[in-house]
Amino acid sequence: MAFYIQKYGGTSVGSTERIKNVARRVAKFHSQGHQIIVVVSAMSGETNRLISLANEVQANPDPRELDVMISTGEQVSIALLSMALMELNIKAKSYTGAQVSILTDSAHTKARILNIDEDKIRKDLQDGYVLVVAGFQGADKTGSITTLGRGGSDTTGVALAAALKADECQIYTDVDGIYTTDPRIVPEARRLKTVTFEEMLEMASLGSKILQLRAVEFAGKYKVKLRVLSSFEDEGEGTLITYEENKDMEQPVISGIAFNRDEAKITVSGVPDHPGIAYQILGPVADANVDVDMIIQNVGHDGLTDFSFTVHRRDFSGTMEILKNKIQPHVGARDVIGGDRIAKVSVVGVGMRSHAGIASKMFRVLAEEGINIQMIATSEIKVSVVVDEKYMELAVRVLHKAFDLEQVVQN
Amino acid sequence: MAFYIQKYGGTSVGSTERIKNVARRVAKFHSQGHQIIVVVSAMSGETNRLISLANEVQANPDPRELDVMISTGEQVSIALLSMALMELNIKAKSYTGAQVSILTDSAHTKARILNIDEDKIRKDLQDGYVLVVAGFQGADKTGSITTLGRGGSDTTGVALAAALKADECQIYTDVDGIYTTDPRIVPEARRLKTVTFEEMLEMASLGSKILQLRAVEFAGKYKVKLRVLSSFEDEGEGTLITYEENKDMEQPVISGIAFNRDEAKITVSGVPDHPGIAYQILGPVADANVDVDMIIQNVGHDGLTDFSFTVHRRDFSGTMEILKNKIQPHVGARDVIGGDRIAKVSVVGVGMRSHAGIASKMFRVLAEEGINIQMIATSEIKVSVVVDEKYMELAVRVLHKAFDLEQVVQN
Repeated sequence: MAFYIQKYGGTSVGSTERIKNVARRVAKFHSQGHQIIVVVSAMSGETNRLISLANEVQANPDPRELDVMISTGEQVSIALLSMALMELNIKAKSYTGAQVSILTDSAHTKARILNIDEDKIRKDLQDGYVLVVAGFQGADKTGSITTLGRGGSDTTGVALAAALKADECQIYTDVDGIYTTDPRIVPEARRLKTVTFEEMLEMASLGSKILQLRAVEFAGKYKVKLRVLSSFEDEGEGTLITYEENKDMEQPVISGIAFNRDEAKITVSGVPDHPGIAYQILGPVADANVDVDMIIQNVGHDGLTDFSFTVHRRDFSGTMEILKNKIQPHVGARDVIGGDRIAKVSVVGVGMRSHAGIASKMFRVLAEEGINIQMIATSEIKVSVVVDEKYMELAVRVLHKAFDLEQVVQN
Repeated sequence: MAFYIQKYGGTSVGSTERIKNVARRVAKFHSQGHQIIVVVSAMSGETNRLISLANEVQANPDPRELDVMISTGEQVSIALLSMALMELNIKAKSYTGAQVSILTDSAHTKARILNIDEDKIRKDLQDGYVLVVAGFQGADKTGSITTLGRGGSDTTGVALAAALKADECQIYTDVDGIYTTDPRIVPEARRLKTVTFEEMLEMASLGSKILQLRAVEFAGKYKVKLRVLSSFEDEGEGTLITYEENKDMEQPVISGIAFNRDEAKITVSGVPDHPGIAYQILGPVADANVDVDMIIQNVGHDGLTDFSFTVHRRDFSGTMEILKNKIQPHVGARDVIGGDRIAKVSVVGVGMRSHAGIASKMFRVLAEEGINIQMIATSEIKVSVVVDEKYMELAVRVLHKAFDLEQVVQN
C-alpha cells in the first residue's frame, strides 16, 4: 500500500466526461489499497473566462479580489470530482485551499506556501476518504484567499506530498512523460524513464512547459518523488524525476534538446568597461518588470565592451525603448541593436559534467549544417546557443541525432 | 449618517454592466456618508448552470459537494462588485460567507444561520470600507461550506442587519416595491409605501415572490427594518415593511389582493368522522414530502365527513395516487376526487381585524360576477378562496376595485 498525491491539470478535468475518467483512474488506485489525495486545477478555459470577466470591470483587477474570483475555478472542479468518485461508491471529500489550511503569504496572484496543516487530512485519510484538494490556492493569515500563479496546482501537489511525506507525487498531464525533445519536431524523440531534478529544471526553464518550474524546485528542496504521466492513457510509467545521479549505471551524456522561440536578443555595444556597468544597464530593465534570460559580456578592449542579453519576445520593443532613451545616453554606449527573430537551442544533461567536448561537438554539428551561432551561454549541465529562428527546427533535429538520443538506453 | 445593508439579487448583478450600475448606486449612498454592507447573489443563471454541471456527474448531487460548487456563484459576484467599487475610488473588500463567519447548521443546501461574528466587519467599517458579502452561504462548525436555499441571499442580508443592528435592510429587486396586486393583471395596482410584517408574510406565502418568506420571518423576529426597492430606478422609496400597526392614522382595511395558480385541490369524501382521521390522511402525504397549503374539514353528519386540502400543482398526481392506493382503502373513504385547474385568491390586510364584513363583501363581489367559490379558508388578516382557474384574473380585478385599492392613501 502506498500513499500518492495525484495532480490532474485543466485539460484532464476539462469536461464532466473527463472528470468521470479521472474518477475511474483514482478508483483503480484506491481499489488497490493505496491512499490517495487528488489535486485538481480548474476546468480548462475557466480561469481565462474569469479573468476576462474581471477585466470587464477593472483594467487591472485588484489582486485580492481577482484571487477571490479565479479560485472558484478549482472549487467547482473539486466538487465535481468528489461527486464523480461517490458515483463509483468511493468515500470522497473536497477541500478548498483555505479549508485544508494551505497557509500562504499575502502576495496575491503569486503567493508562496508557508505551511500546511496536516491533522485534518490525516484524520480523513484514516477514515478511508479520498481527498480532493483545490490546486493553485490557499489563504493568508487573515483568511484572505490567495492563488499561487499559473501552474500553481503542481506546486500544491508537491507541497502536500512534502508535508504529508507521500510516497510519490504524480502529475497527470496531456503528455505521457518528458521527451528527449519535442516529438512534433523530431518524430524519433524518446520518452525518458528518468530525468534528474537539475535536468528537469533546465528543461522546464527552457520551455518544456510540462511542469511548473517552482513545483520542480519545491520538489527538489523536499526530495519529493515526482512523476509525470498521461491522464489519457491507462498504461505507461511516465517519467520519474530523480534527485541523485545513478552511480551504478553509465549515465547517458545528454538527456535532451530543449528549445525556445519566444526570445529576443539585445546588444548594447561600445559601453565603458568599468565596474557597475551591468547593473546600470539591467537595473532599469528589471525595474520595468522585464525578465532577462541569457546575459553575455565578453572581455572588453580599448576600455569598451559589448553587453548582450535576451528577453521574452513580447518585451522586446519596450526594452529597446528603455535602452535607447534612458540607458544609452546615460552610460554613453555606442549603439543599441537587437532582433526578435531568434531562437534558443540547448543541449541538457548531467552527464556532461564528466564528459568533455559536449560544447565543441554541438558547435561542430551546427557548423556542418551552416547554422551561425549568435550567442553562447553555458552552465554545468547545459549548453545554450542563440540562432536565427528559421534554423531552430533543423538545429534541434541534427543535435538530437548527433547525441544519439534516438537510441538512448535509460537506467 | 445611517448604516444600511443593501442586498442585490441575481438580475441586478446579471452582467458586468449591471454590476457597475450597482457600484454607482452604492457609491452614491457612500458619498452621503452612510456605512454600507452590500450582500449579493450569483449572477442570474449562474446557479442553474452550476447545478446542471453537477447533474451531469451525479443524478442526485451530494449536498456537501453541491454547496461547494454553487457557493462559487456568489464568490464571483462579490469580487466583481468590489472591483467595480474600487474603480470608483471606493475602498471595498469582499467576504465569502465562511470568511465573514456566518456560522450555520450542517443542513447542506438549506442551512440555517446560527451566528455571525461581527468583530471583523466592525473593524472594516470603521476603517471606511464598503463590505461586499456573499449572500446565500455560510459555513458549519467543521468549516464545510453551506448554502441557505433559494432566495437565501435575502436571509443573509436580514441576518447581517440583525446582528449588526443596521438602520435598514434594503432589498433591491427588479420591482420597485410591493403592490396592492400584480400590475400585469390590474394595471391600476398601486405601490404600497408601507406594509406590515404580517401582511408581507401572507403576501409572500401567497405567491408574491418578491421576498423570501424565511427572510421576512427572520426580519420580524429581530425587528429589522426591511425595504424593497428597484435596482433599476434611481428614485423611489420602495415599500417599507413595518412591525407595528400605525396607531396614529386610519389603517386601510385591505392592503392587497394576492393570488396563486400553482395549486391543486384534493377532497377525500365520506371518511369516518373520528379523532385522528386528519393525521391518517395527511401523515402519508407529509411522508412523501408533499407540502399541504389550505386544509378544510367541515362539520360531519351521519358519522362521516369530507376532508379537503390543496397541494402544489406538480404534486397533484403523486398525491392522488397515494390517497387512492394507500389511504382510501385504509381509512375506508367513499371517494377521492380532485382537480388541478384551480386558483387561490386572497384578500389581505391587518385592517380586517377591526373591520367586520370583509369576508362577506368578498363573497358578494365574487357572486355578482358569477364566480363559484370552491373552498374558503380564513386567518386573522386574510380571507382566501379557491375558484376555477379561468376566473382568477377576473376575481383579482373585481376585488381590487371593490376594496378601493386603486385609491388607497398610504400612511
